[in-house]
Amino acid sequence: MYSPAIDNLIRALKKLPSVGQRTAERFAFHWLGAGKKEVNELRDVLNTLLEKTKSCEICWNFDDTSPCHTCQNPRRDQTQVCVVESPEDIPVIEKTAAFSGTYHVLRGTLNADLSEIEIQKLKIPELLKRASPTAKLPVQEIILALNLNLAGETTMLFLEQELKKTNPQLKVSRLARGLPLGSDVRYADEMTLGSAIRNRK
Amino acid sequence: MYSPAIDNLIRALKKLPSVGQRTAERFAFHWLGAGKKEVNELRDVLNTLLEKTKSCEICWNFDDTSPCHTCQNPRRDQTQVCVVESPEDIPVIEKTAAFSGTYHVLRGTLNADLSEIEIQKLKIPELLKRASPTAKLPVQEIILALNLNLAGETTMLFLEQELKKTNPQLKVSRLARGLPLGSDVRYADEMTLGSAIRNRK
Repeated sequence: MYSPAIDNLIRALKKLPSVGQRTAERFAFHWLGAGKKEVNELRDVLNTLLEKTKSCEICWNFDDTSPCHTCQNPRRDQTQVCVVESPEDIPVIEKTAAFSGTYHVLRGTLNADLSEIEIQKLKIPELLKRASPTAKLPVQEIILALNLNLAGETTMLFLEQELKKTNPQLKVSRLARGLPLGSDVRYADEMTLGSAIRNRK
Repeated sequence: MYSPAIDNLIRALKKLPSVGQRTAERFAFHWLGAGKKEVNELRDVLNTLLEKTKSCEICWNFDDTSPCHTCQNPRRDQTQVCVVESPEDIPVIEKTAAFSGTYHVLRGTLNADLSEIEIQKLKIPELLKRASPTAKLPVQEIILALNLNLAGETTMLFLEQELKKTNPQLKVSRLARGLPLGSDVRYADEMTLGSAIRNRK
């Protein structure tokens, strides 16, 4: 229905997470309406993106250096590692100013089937290597900060087992469960309320 | 918080309609995770987009030729012009097979203030020129197929007045009220839209 150039752009945009035909069309026609300057800017930004961006060889976050700025920072506690699903989780944790250790970006979570392919696709072997007693930078505590949904829970359970096998000395913790600020007790789910009562302070 | 290369991409993506910080981050990290092949493909697609895509000099739709394929098609009735807000509306109308005329893409709608700047930004002067009795391709009927929300209604009211001034002989119609108030043309089902075209008033 559209010209091949427009169709190709729509097809490329549909690979983005939760972008379907309609959204891809809106993006494509936004750029066509916006014109040369905005499209050229985006093209240049994409050009430099892969060129300038590196995966940190320690924590697998994306940055313009490897090791990244956080892993290179002498004021960050290298013995504490916070495991997150994706790079977007790091700024949210940083904003709390409650953590001064380093990170490990898994780049996803495991399905319930725990297949070897899934495990190798994520940065799990790299995490286990980092946590091993013979690692270059010895780690004392791993904080599992994955999302509290089925995939996150499955992955944390698996990591707890594997980390204990790799290094029995290691302290492995999870984020505390409790009621979020401003929430109503009457609307809290049983699991959350239960652990909020048990972990009362 | 992110590296400059990533921040620049996020800033560029936030210009897209209804894309905020979180969505732009997800898109950026999707491409970083997907790697070179997908990013290069998108960059190439953007490169060819503006190069190959033209605004049709008659209807202002985007196509790889100007005049576009529809305006060049001898089987399309050049005396009937269907006015739409944006290019995405055209495939939806085409699917109904209830219309065999040509189109005019306004590239937006007017606000209630009807400022001269707004009017000039849209393809309204071009529509009035097309509708004039002395135009090269004489038009007999204009069908206003804008969305039935405030901006669409305002624009249709304004266009009806201006078109009558330009060419008192002109038949100006609207899609029949079969569409629920407040609905978008592009999301209408084929049956409703088809009868709305046939029962235009």
